[in-house]
Amino acid sequence: MVNNIRKVYLDNNATTKVDERVIEYMNIFFRDTYAVASSQFSHTPGIKAKDAVVKSRNIIAESINAKADEIIFTSGATEANNLAIKGVAYADKTNRDKIIISSIEHFSVYQTAEHLRKDGYKVEYIKVDEEGFVDIEDLKTKIDEKTLLVSICIGNHEVGTIQDISSISEIVHSRGAYLHSDGAAAYLQTDIDVIKDNIDLLSITAHKIYGPKGVGALFVKKNIPIVKVFGGGFQEFDLRPGTENVPGIAGFGKAVEIYSKKDSEFAYNMRNCLYKELNKNIDGVILNGASDFSKRLCNNLNVSFEYIEGESVVLHLDMRGIAVITGSACFSRSLQASHILLAMGFSHERAHGSIRFSTSKYITKDDIHYTVTEVKDVIEKLRKLSPLI
Amino acid sequence: MVNNIRKVYLDNNATTKVDERVIEYMNIFFRDTYAVASSQFSHTPGIKAKDAVVKSRNIIAESINAKADEIIFTSGATEANNLAIKGVAYADKTNRDKIIISSIEHFSVYQTAEHLRKDGYKVEYIKVDEEGFVDIEDLKTKIDEKTLLVSICIGNHEVGTIQDISSISEIVHSRGAYLHSDGAAAYLQTDIDVIKDNIDLLSITAHKIYGPKGVGALFVKKNIPIVKVFGGGFQEFDLRPGTENVPGIAGFGKAVEIYSKKDSEFAYNMRNCLYKELNKNIDGVILNGASDFSKRLCNNLNVSFEYIEGESVVLHLDMRGIAVITGSACFSRSLQASHILLAMGFSHERAHGSIRFSTSKYITKDDIHYTVTEVKDVIEKLRKLSPLI
Repeated sequence: MVNNIRKVYLDNNATTKVDERVIEYMNIFFRDTYAVASSQFSHTPGIKAKDAVVKSRNIIAESINAKADEIIFTSGATEANNLAIKGVAYADKTNRDKIIISSIEHFSVYQTAEHLRKDGYKVEYIKVDEEGFVDIEDLKTKIDEKTLLVSICIGNHEVGTIQDISSISEIVHSRGAYLHSDGAAAYLQTDIDVIKDNIDLLSITAHKIYGPKGVGALFVKKNIPIVKVFGGGFQEFDLRPGTENVPGIAGFGKAVEIYSKKDSEFAYNMRNCLYKELNKNIDGVILNGASDFSKRLCNNLNVSFEYIEGESVVLHLDMRGIAVITGSACFSRSLQASHILLAMGFSHERAHGSIRFSTSKYITKDDIHYTVTEVKDVIEKLRKLSPLI
Repeated sequence: MVNNIRKVYLDNNATTKVDERVIEYMNIFFRDTYAVASSQFSHTPGIKAKDAVVKSRNIIAESINAKADEIIFTSGATEANNLAIKGVAYADKTNRDKIIISSIEHFSVYQTAEHLRKDGYKVEYIKVDEEGFVDIEDLKTKIDEKTLLVSICIGNHEVGTIQDISSISEIVHSRGAYLHSDGAAAYLQTDIDVIKDNIDLLSITAHKIYGPKGVGALFVKKNIPIVKVFGGGFQEFDLRPGTENVPGIAGFGKAVEIYSKKDSEFAYNMRNCLYKELNKNIDGVILNGASDFSKRLCNNLNVSFEYIEGESVVLHLDMRGIAVITGSACFSRSLQASHILLAMGFSHERAHGSIRFSTSKYITKDDIHYTVTEVKDVIEKLRKLSPLI
């Protein structure tokens, strides 16, 4: 039965289907241009591989208004976040010993900062409001002349809230600290301009923009002191050793090259349509995250349904072919409610009840209608059984 | 002109062309089974992605006689080497403070060990003989009750020498230390049995066995204390965070599944044929690395041509469509001779003159004949110009 029903993948904040043009392009590098890019000084196959890396680097740099030599390819945003935070801390020659992050950062930022605490750094957390916006006053209070680095995610992968990075950046730089932003969820979905936004380090990834998994990048503004955190070869301007993942890097570049504002607009419209229809058809739909949709990732919807446990909704929807999640994707094996929702001041019930629907350029209106019909039916059935009502 | 000549890729110790069956299989995961593997508890697409990871883990574990939960997927062997050495050092609760590596280890092992020196570890280097074999007596002298970890590469990527890992392992374990082996170049090309060879940690990679770049693994024997070195999510038994590279992992498994002893035998025969013909046709061919070909990576040939600079040979051969290298691939942008050849006691001339030819299952007899003819011509021309004669 399950095989005959409609399949609606609404977990695009976790990862996206790879675009056919990206697959086709990557296959060239599996099949023909497969040499190691760092053998460029030895032979023509190496030069061709290197050329592909250079091409991708240019495309990606341009997409955020950076220079090519400010882009370091990594295995993904998690590694980029580690490289940014540890790399800057290990390179530091000043007496600055404080790292500030927000209380809704990804685990890769949170754990890396906590790792540095063991090395003697002070780590402070900035509060967020109920919609997930960083408390600017709290940042002003906590930042000081001893602060080395502030790491604030641009767009939250769970509740979709997009921070006012320019304002944050101004405060951070007024105290002489560096600003790192985890842009994994926001990259291309929202405009990021590292010069206008004055970001010093930015983590991005390919697999959330119809590119491959296993490849990401860290933007490092020229002259920011940073060292590599892996031991190894001299690849990536001696900041990220290991044989370059040429097909992945090429695919990343291709994904960025073909990404269109229309893709974001389409996902945005589908998301809005989904929210409107859910609201119209179901009582007690509570929006989580930014209520101003212009300050929200274009494809993210996160809602709680009154009296209902998110886990049950997810499993029932899965049986109907609809893929959504509750809580963070990285955290879904845990029984704990998402630390992000708890930091936003949610009750355990609301946090546990949260469902994230995230659209893509592949979603159709029929998918949305099917989803709304099924969600309505599931919620009605579950509410009849709910001990909370 | 260059486009019409025969192309002979003889740089397979650096990386290999991906097998068509691997490409086809990976495309499924770009195109259809693209969900995040850690969303397995949320939805069916996640379960399918997780299943692919589990399948690969089983295949790879079996290939080295390990258990599935002893395999940690990484972005490659460089990361695996970092995880092995730092992960064990950071987890250690004993007073052991010495790390021993051989003097011909890959940069990822060497730099990671040196990084630990800054954390207070003593780092010692084991000598090798002229053929690249680890000096067992030197190991016996340097290892003591304070030694935490010994890291010795199984098969050297540059000169092909395969170590007697069982004997090394016996010495290492007699002092209660752990043995890590970088198996990136040797994996599948030579039999590795982590139980019989008694290896505690083993780094492997996909892209040298007709699999994709950007994915590798670390085998960690059950109950070896180790911690993750990246901050992030709970993936890979909480030892390697970051969204799983499902297509890469699936492709790695497929490459291992289809790898046949015949592939190694074929590359071995082609390599032997190449060596025989070079020797027959050219005077002053000096073999670098193990002279006993049973103790040498099946596809590796490393030779120096008397009176000739390697760089010139490489560039002339490239113009004739033949891809080879001189010195380590990772090091080719440097003017320094390979640290591996220098550690083997080579003169600078011999080290600079070294050429690595590495075969694969795709090489034909005609490729070998063409290569020998061209090498002979290049060497004769260069010798006429050589100031060394």
